[in-house]
Amino acid sequence: MTHHTTNGSDNGELAEPKSLTHHFSDAANNIVPSPLKALYKYTGDPTKISLASGLPPAEYFPFSSVQATVHDPNKFSEDLARVGEDFSFRVPLNSKDAGLDIPLELSLQYSASQGLPPLVDFLTEHTRMVHTPPYKNWDVVCTLGNTHAWDSVLTLFCNPGDTILVEKYCYPPPFVSANGKGYNVVPVFLDMDGIVPEKLEILLANWQQSQGKFPRLLYTICTGQNPTGSSLSEERRRAIYQICQKYDLLIIEDEPYYFLQMDPYEKEVEKRSQHCSLQSYEHFLNSLIPSFLKMDVDGRVLRMDSLSKVIAPGVRVGWIVGQKVFLEKVIRLNEYVIQAPNGFSQSLLYGLFSRWGQTGYLDWLINLRKEYTIRRDFAIDMIEKYIDKEYASWDAPVAGMFFHIEIDASKHPKYEELGKDALAIEKLIFDRSLENGTVIVPGSWFQVDKSMTSEKIFFRGTYAAVALKNLEQGMKQFAEALRAEFSDN
Amino acid sequence: MTHHTTNGSDNGELAEPKSLTHHFSDAANNIVPSPLKALYKYTGDPTKISLASGLPPAEYFPFSSVQATVHDPNKFSEDLARVGEDFSFRVPLNSKDAGLDIPLELSLQYSASQGLPPLVDFLTEHTRMVHTPPYKNWDVVCTLGNTHAWDSVLTLFCNPGDTILVEKYCYPPPFVSANGKGYNVVPVFLDMDGIVPEKLEILLANWQQSQGKFPRLLYTICTGQNPTGSSLSEERRRAIYQICQKYDLLIIEDEPYYFLQMDPYEKEVEKRSQHCSLQSYEHFLNSLIPSFLKMDVDGRVLRMDSLSKVIAPGVRVGWIVGQKVFLEKVIRLNEYVIQAPNGFSQSLLYGLFSRWGQTGYLDWLINLRKEYTIRRDFAIDMIEKYIDKEYASWDAPVAGMFFHIEIDASKHPKYEELGKDALAIEKLIFDRSLENGTVIVPGSWFQVDKSMTSEKIFFRGTYAAVALKNLEQGMKQFAEALRAEFSDN
Repeated sequence: MTHHTTNGSDNGELAEPKSLTHHFSDAANNIVPSPLKALYKYTGDPTKISLASGLPPAEYFPFSSVQATVHDPNKFSEDLARVGEDFSFRVPLNSKDAGLDIPLELSLQYSASQGLPPLVDFLTEHTRMVHTPPYKNWDVVCTLGNTHAWDSVLTLFCNPGDTILVEKYCYPPPFVSANGKGYNVVPVFLDMDGIVPEKLEILLANWQQSQGKFPRLLYTICTGQNPTGSSLSEERRRAIYQICQKYDLLIIEDEPYYFLQMDPYEKEVEKRSQHCSLQSYEHFLNSLIPSFLKMDVDGRVLRMDSLSKVIAPGVRVGWIVGQKVFLEKVIRLNEYVIQAPNGFSQSLLYGLFSRWGQTGYLDWLINLRKEYTIRRDFAIDMIEKYIDKEYASWDAPVAGMFFHIEIDASKHPKYEELGKDALAIEKLIFDRSLENGTVIVPGSWFQVDKSMTSEKIFFRGTYAAVALKNLEQGMKQFAEALRAEFSDN
Repeated sequence: MTHHTTNGSDNGELAEPKSLTHHFSDAANNIVPSPLKALYKYTGDPTKISLASGLPPAEYFPFSSVQATVHDPNKFSEDLARVGEDFSFRVPLNSKDAGLDIPLELSLQYSASQGLPPLVDFLTEHTRMVHTPPYKNWDVVCTLGNTHAWDSVLTLFCNPGDTILVEKYCYPPPFVSANGKGYNVVPVFLDMDGIVPEKLEILLANWQQSQGKFPRLLYTICTGQNPTGSSLSEERRRAIYQICQKYDLLIIEDEPYYFLQMDPYEKEVEKRSQHCSLQSYEHFLNSLIPSFLKMDVDGRVLRMDSLSKVIAPGVRVGWIVGQKVFLEKVIRLNEYVIQAPNGFSQSLLYGLFSRWGQTGYLDWLINLRKEYTIRRDFAIDMIEKYIDKEYASWDAPVAGMFFHIEIDASKHPKYEELGKDALAIEKLIFDRSLENGTVIVPGSWFQVDKSMTSEKIFFRGTYAAVALKNLEQGMKQFAEALRAEFSDN
């Protein structure tokens, strides 16, 4: 099995990334490899007998093969339902029978903390096709998904007390864990199109000591943001990138929903037929909003990619892309935290990808895009049909799994009586909706700074894991709860 | 899928563990669940439609089943070689077809950070059979193996600057990572039978401020210690446990080699035939050295168990056992670091275990014991055959994968000339052995405190992943290197 090689080194026109190692935390600076790594150079040397490494012999693994039945991306039915187009492959124990597979004797053994080379190579080629990072010597390191990637990034780039910027409404685990680890988490304003560059600039230009240390990094779920559903335009991304250059911030782009991008919502059903048709892979790739990684001439972006939303959450394999000097520390940390990604998962994912190929994987992603477009369209149709615009507003997301419905709490009949407490109104609506049989998440649960108040509240909904007929019923029940709350009863 | 229930609560005679929460680190005290966990109570409620959770629908998972071919533990051949006794099982996507399996729609979805209940239940029952923890409300939480478990334990029970005790020779990652995280790592004396209780008592009784904060925990690989191969006797364990009670230390027992225990080495080959025969499961279980967990009336032990040495390293599933209050924090940390163990691995391991059953798993372990006994015996035979006792000594290990050969550096002809630098002699031997074609690890690589010197040096060897004929050749080459070094040439 050949070693994974560094990337971007084949293109003489690209420049080296900036040296940004002053961003390393003490933990990153202190981390050193185990002295036993010195033994690696003798691995596979036919002139040496090794009495060195405590590896269990592969003949003592009780698994002699694993087999998977998977979807053929070239034979999707219209609705992705399984109608007999699956095919199977078998991952053997031994290398000599392996063919397109990473054999179990490698994947179930102690293995590379970066990920097994064939899988890393596949993800690297995918990254090159989609993002083409514009500098030399970028690299890819496997993670266990973006939860784990974020934990690694925090450890390596922030000392306790350091400040990190996150969108003011954010999926809670990233900021709750950062708070728990002792970091200073400061919210950044965002609207329905994501972070507003001008507001970010104002925040940084007027930074006060009382706000904590000057920020080190910006964490953003920039496509299909969770919970707002917003997506940053290319223009905003370029503006934000320049601001981060000016103020020397790292950008952590957390992108699980990147491939759940869609064309804008089209209200008229007849006009929808062609709006998710893609003529070619090139057309598909060009339809994607450019990532921060794609414009990262400095090497200040760490991109966290995940298979959780496009393959399955339980595969627990994702990857980080960034400059090699940064990623070497990620590998080092992997050695001490996870050792290596799961062997079954690496063999099974690589078995899938090696048979699908890069274009087969794109086919899969294109089909998911269609699926989620249908779901998104239906969800927005239902909002338009049932929700009353008198007190509620919404935008149709162009990516991800979530929509958000904004509510003007000041129009609630009890607003004054409750001391203009918008969160009290939110609670009334949440409880009423529950009573009606619909669970939908209050926006305040995602609020990074609980002290910030507004008369605008919102609820996050999803069109991901709900059958369409339930989605309609659920929306109807929520709409009725709103109507009951906002009527002068 | 039913929820995993707490353990030890069925036995009215057992006492609650001691409250030891003063050992929590700031990180442990600060960690809180994500607010989204409040949604869990509505999961599976048929009266509610959830628009709450961003779960990808299982029909979008490209894997529609996985299948494994595995060893039948009741049909081992004499040497565990695969001679057609494998059987297969298939893990389906859907719950309704699942039978003995955890279906992929559960394991590949976002899932419990403790591990999936059927797997946790199997491991709990196994723990009960082997260790029978003597207090109420102990629990089991899945980890990604002991590397990950140790990282979690350090985070939850030590603030940077806190002192941890480790054996003076130790597998490097645990102490190198602890150093990197800013902990004060202090070595504890051990001999060929492991930590010497009297020396531990002296260390603690005479603790000086100059040595750092008073120790919080003792980390020990107590069975088949890596690198020395030593194993703590029951007597020593009881003495050490009492010392840890007296000085209020937590005990972290890192036990990957626990089931690679063997009868003592028997030099006469004819007497060996019966020395690894076991008449019953009870006999097998009684043959095992009692764990610290088994004597843990206080709940001050965190036992880290691993499948890496008994199933395969790449399965990346282990588990921690300890008092429930401690393990709740481990679950919390899992949520933010790994999210959950790997789904494929949980389904495939549970599929294996549910078919093997508890006794089938014991059969497997008993056979491994036989295998490693044969390997250990052969390795010691070769040491006895080739290594010269004039300057070398050894003890036959009774557990694990490693032997160690101690060398008296003062007998080396260049000892005086090299300024009595034993490590310089170690280097000469290592290089000469390499030249001869044998890789064997110098003991100093495992030394926690590099400033401690002795005229005794050692080399760690393994009988695990090496074919027996290579083991003989490798030992011969090492012996020749020693002979060349110690001859007056």
